Amino acid sequence: MTVRVAVAGASGYAGGELLRLLLSHPEVEIGALTAGGNAGSALGQHHPNLLPLADRVLVETTAAELSGHDVVFLALPHGHSAAIAAELGEDTVVIDCGADHRLNDPEDWSRWYGGEHPGTWPYGVPELPGARERLRGAKRVAVAGCFPTVSSLALAPALAAGLVEPEAVVVAVTGTSGAGRALKPHLLSAEVMGSASVYGVGGAHRHTPEFIQNLSAAAGEPVKVSFTPVLAPMARGILATCSAALREGVSADSAREVYLKAYGDEPFVHVLPEGQWPQTSATLGANTVHLQLAVDPDADRLIVVAAEDNLTKGTAGGAVQCMNIAVGLPETTGLPTVGVAP
Amino acid sequence: MTVRVAVAGASGYAGGELLRLLLSHPEVEIGALTAGGNAGSALGQHHPNLLPLADRVLVETTAAELSGHDVVFLALPHGHSAAIAAELGEDTVVIDCGADHRLNDPEDWSRWYGGEHPGTWPYGVPELPGARERLRGAKRVAVAGCFPTVSSLALAPALAAGLVEPEAVVVAVTGTSGAGRALKPHLLSAEVMGSASVYGVGGAHRHTPEFIQNLSAAAGEPVKVSFTPVLAPMARGILATCSAALREGVSADSAREVYLKAYGDEPFVHVLPEGQWPQTSATLGANTVHLQLAVDPDADRLIVVAAEDNLTKGTAGGAVQCMNIAVGLPETTGLPTVGVAP
Amino acid sequence: MTVRVAVAGASGYAGGELLRLLLSHPEVEIGALTAGGNAGSALGQHHPNLLPLADRVLVETTAAELSGHDVVFLALPHGHSAAIAAELGEDTVVIDCGADHRLNDPEDWSRWYGGEHPGTWPYGVPELPGARERLRGAKRVAVAGCFPTVSSLALAPALAAGLVEPEAVVVAVTGTSGAGRALKPHLLSAEVMGSASVYGVGGAHRHTPEFIQNLSAAAGEPVKVSFTPVLAPMARGILATCSAALREGVSADSAREVYLKAYGDEPFVHVLPEGQWPQTSATLGANTVHLQLAVDPDADRLIVVAAEDNLTKGTAGGAVQCMNIAVGLPETTGLPTVGVAP
Amino acid sequence: MTVRVAVAGASGYAGGELLRLLLSHPEVEIGALTAGGNAGSALGQHHPNLLPLADRVLVETTAAELSGHDVVFLALPHGHSAAIAAELGEDTVVIDCGADHRLNDPEDWSRWYGGEHPGTWPYGVPELPGARERLRGAKRVAVAGCFPTVSSLALAPALAAGLVEPEAVVVAVTGTSGAGRALKPHLLSAEVMGSASVYGVGGAHRHTPEFIQNLSAAAGEPVKVSFTPVLAPMARGILATCSAALREGVSADSAREVYLKAYGDEPFVHVLPEGQWPQTSATLGANTVHLQLAVDPDADRLIVVAAEDNLTKGTAGGAVQCMNIAVGLPETTGLPTVGVAP
Repeated sequence: MTVRVAVAGASGYAGGELLRLLLSHPEVEIGALTAGGNAGSALGQHHPNLLPLADRVLVETTAAELSGHDVVFLALPHGHSAAIAAELGEDTVVIDCGADHRLNDPEDWSRWYGGEHPGTWPYGVPELPGARERLRGAKRVAVAGCFPTVSSLALAPALAAGLVEPEAVVVAVTGTSGAGRALKPHLLSAEVMGSASVYGVGGAHRHTPEFIQNLSAAAGEPVKVSFTPVLAPMARGILATCSAALREGVSADSAREVYLKAYGDEPFVHVLPEGQWPQTSATLGANTVHLQLAVDPDADRLIVVAAEDNLTKGTAGGAVQCMNIAVGLPETTGLPTVGVAP
Repeated sequence: MTVRVAVAGASGYAGGELLRLLLSHPEVEIGALTAGGNAGSALGQHHPNLLPLADRVLVETTAAELSGHDVVFLALPHGHSAAIAAELGEDTVVIDCGADHRLNDPEDWSRWYGGEHPGTWPYGVPELPGARERLRGAKRVAVAGCFPTVSSLALAPALAAGLVEPEAVVVAVTGTSGAGRALKPHLLSAEVMGSASVYGVGGAHRHTPEFIQNLSAAAGEPVKVSFTPVLAPMARGILATCSAALREGVSADSAREVYLKAYGDEPFVHVLPEGQWPQTSATLGANTVHLQLAVDPDADRLIVVAAEDNLTKGTAGGAVQCMNIAVGLPETTGLPTVGVAP
Repeated sequence: MTVRVAVAGASGYAGGELLRLLLSHPEVEIGALTAGGNAGSALGQHHPNLLPLADRVLVETTAAELSGHDVVFLALPHGHSAAIAAELGEDTVVIDCGADHRLNDPEDWSRWYGGEHPGTWPYGVPELPGARERLRGAKRVAVAGCFPTVSSLALAPALAAGLVEPEAVVVAVTGTSGAGRALKPHLLSAEVMGSASVYGVGGAHRHTPEFIQNLSAAAGEPVKVSFTPVLAPMARGILATCSAALREGVSADSAREVYLKAYGDEPFVHVLPEGQWPQTSATLGANTVHLQLAVDPDADRLIVVAAEDNLTKGTAGGAVQCMNIAVGLPETTGLPTVGVAP
Repeated sequence: MTVRVAVAGASGYAGGELLRLLLSHPEVEIGALTAGGNAGSALGQHHPNLLPLADRVLVETTAAELSGHDVVFLALPHGHSAAIAAELGEDTVVIDCGADHRLNDPEDWSRWYGGEHPGTWPYGVPELPGARERLRGAKRVAVAGCFPTVSSLALAPALAAGLVEPEAVVVAVTGTSGAGRALKPHLLSAEVMGSASVYGVGGAHRHTPEFIQNLSAAAGEPVKVSFTPVLAPMARGILATCSAALREGVSADSAREVYLKAYGDEPFVHVLPEGQWPQTSATLGANTVHLQLAVDPDADRLIVVAAEDNLTKGTAGGAVQCMNIAVGLPETTGLPTVGVAP
């Protein structure tokens, strides 16, 4: 089987990571590569790591350039995917790495992004309950946000099993590639190196409704989520420290049991051996989540810490995993589970 | 007034930072510098930044070498300070940067450190309620831990004013100098750079009882604290994200008011202007805490984020501030409030 | 003596570092702070580390705002200083951190910067032969470039003493603050962290003629210089590895003798003890150069490695040092010699 | 074809990188994994990124454990490979990542490493003239040092073509994983982050004779090499700035021609398009060298800058490439050419 794919937004970080993974995918043939302002330039100028594609010239992001492929990945700014998807027609699988189609509730969309809701697509975290069924054969996929991916995987089993109260606190340390290639002063290297900072505090980050949606679905009741993203001096990686108040009678052993059962057969989500805690470097470039949990008997909380590479499992790897499911390939095809460390 | 000081443990990071600050303190004369395994070597080998002291030779850490000074700073491994302090006598001001004398409760001590409690000394975060009174004229001072310093300052006003429930969640990102100069595999640069990791999860970090002690004192009732330290790829700095469930009727404005009142006159604790969030680089090398707060109306939590330099305000700067108070100098003497950034 | 100073370009990195140093200068009163696009905003938004000046509002960079001060520091883009200096008049000391007035040769200027030569001012590396005399009482000073400062200090003694042939190779690793606060893609943190890169290779960097000018003056004959700047993942610091072919009969001891003689009495340039090599962290935030040398008997070369903080000794510290000399203060007034490490 | 391999020294960085590459090599089956002090522990404790091997237990490094494999990789401290190789017999392919068998001249060995020369094996940089022929069918391979690999590839074409004088200056910036997992104070993260430093200056680094051997072979005459390694705050990557005095009449175009001819057909060595300079991140985790050159007409030097990942092309990738050649597989089998960036 050969899947012919196009990537829209190929000069950004998500686009580059998609191409890195697709280059080693055995069933994929890489077709059109499109960009906005960078159209007309060679891909190698933007991604010198992608040697086999260095001379490929980026073309304009239009439906005409993107049509004629089996799968089109969209790595575009928010708000651009619905129009393009409509033009591509129902036969093309469209996998959107942006936020446009993640939220179920049109009011949530209007509150957080403004404007009219572009509609909801099957949600791209296959390991969440019920997600795989919706992704199989899907022609449209909404890849999850990088923070909600890792944090939802960290907390969903506990909420689903009723181990904790429906109120979660998530503090997630992230590398700066998650912010994309935008030229913003606070992303300048001299600002970032040697410093930790926060942003979007107090429920101001746009991933918040996605957290709530995922965790409430897992819990079967509304879950309150306090989410704080912390910027750390590293290019890639998210380490999410997630906690919630324990329900009575929950022991460390029973909590561990729940997680082993939830993820024991998952190829990409790994509950680490007892005593070993996640570090983002172990997931660098891999489509994996590493997690570990603890019960704090004095604070009466369950703490789950999970690591991923925000560009891989958190974006492009998750997208390729969804493509595999959507087109009927084995889910793990072409996806690395071994990180590049140290 | 000239204060003659000695530093025990001068070859470590806390010792080096003490000397950096003491070198620019206008009322201090630096006397004996002692070390354990590094005794006999020149200070410049361990701290090439301390040029004016480069040729000073480290002597053995003994009471004999340390006696005859007005103030002795101890930057020693846990468990070594009580014996030395006893030998130095009551006339010498002893300022302990270690943990030995921070905890009030002998049982806490035994549980977290083992062995018999070496006794409680006045606690070295002057900005906490009542602390200055105990530090004035004190002959013994227990400098606070780096995590409890910044986090207690972040949460104490809210707990004292009854803004929040007595249950706090603290996730604090730290640079690696906080672990000292120990040769441990997980502190090797190739492990740390490009990676975030956690340790001491689930109430396992020894600073936890210090948090609880400080916050319970502020609240006037027992406070549960869930504390998770996260190691980030930077040499210095702590960014603590602290949150607690809001009590009814607390608004963002009223919360801000409480903090402005608590810290408006403090020279070293700064509530940032609205809209500006802390970054550790702004405190690098300065004896300051920068903090900002938000109310999350959906999650019903107060979030306070605070930054400090773990070696300065979190250790050596806090120690010098305590010395100033103890010996009767103006509290701000010789202490920088301007960080080195970017 | 109170020196009233203004800083033009206060929102950039050089401007921020000037203010950091001037805040602890005992004889300085800080007057107008000006900016280009950032005029109208508070300084604290750009430099949250400069707490005592956080509320100061930046005004437009005009001669009217800058006049009426004893000393005006210019931290402006190239090409802007001559016009402003002309308006300020001869009574004001103008210290230019830009490149406009560094080169002696108008043709060099035209070749490297284009346009007409704005004229030559006394050159701001006081430790170079003859420089102090020209700086004393000067009303105009051209602060040296960050790379030429450290590299000229590294090689000038050897060339002046005839230890080496007049052909030098300099490879200087630099932190990214040297590039200023410009929003350029290659300065984004995700590009820089975890990566080393080069630019301006093959004599293409504009500091090259400044190297040649300084080293030729030291040698008393034209010196060829091959200069390569390397960008490393750190915010501050330059480590310059400088080498030249040895002349016959030069031993390691005789070379060391030359450097000890050249710098033995200098307060800011330190020849490290034998066996100890420079590291940039030891100079962080200090107005110092640390250097060490070796003779390679197989390669027949002298290698001198020197470290500085590009923003301190390499720019703002050098500027304040020149101000001290120009206005008749002791040269070391207000300038730190102790770096912030680790 | 299935090649059964063992890795001695599997808990170190070179061992870990070998395993990362071997896990995705389609013709390899991974057999024994041995260690010294870490024998008895699970591999996952040392390399959490190597998920598929996490539960494999390390055994003692003995010939008995290593025998019975087609290929044995040795990633051991210097001086240990000859004895083990002798016990393994002539039928086993032994690929030594250490220095023991790289040098041709027994006197060089004694001078730089001490003791008796353990003998010379075919040298593992296949792209150097004549190397492939010696590696084909070889039963013993000496993998090259990380610095000599990239620097020899950078300069050999120019020397072979007579473009430059036989005197080279190499300043190579390296990440800290090149120093291995040794617990040395200068490798602690707090020392390394935010700082650049040097070591082994003046011809004191043990890779120097390997440079001289390679470059002299390329030039056909003795070449003098001045080599300075610079430690930068990153985990992986070497950026080597290499230069030599131009011979008369050499133009930029003719120099470029020489390099395009030398490497145009090489799968792992890439001369970048004009105007694009190497950055180590583009080679991260890939078995590639990226290089670019410039002629400096004022300094009369050729400058070649080359980047590699010290653990991949510089060690483990080079080793696997040699294995492929030695056992008769296509040279590129299982080796990535796409780096993980940003």
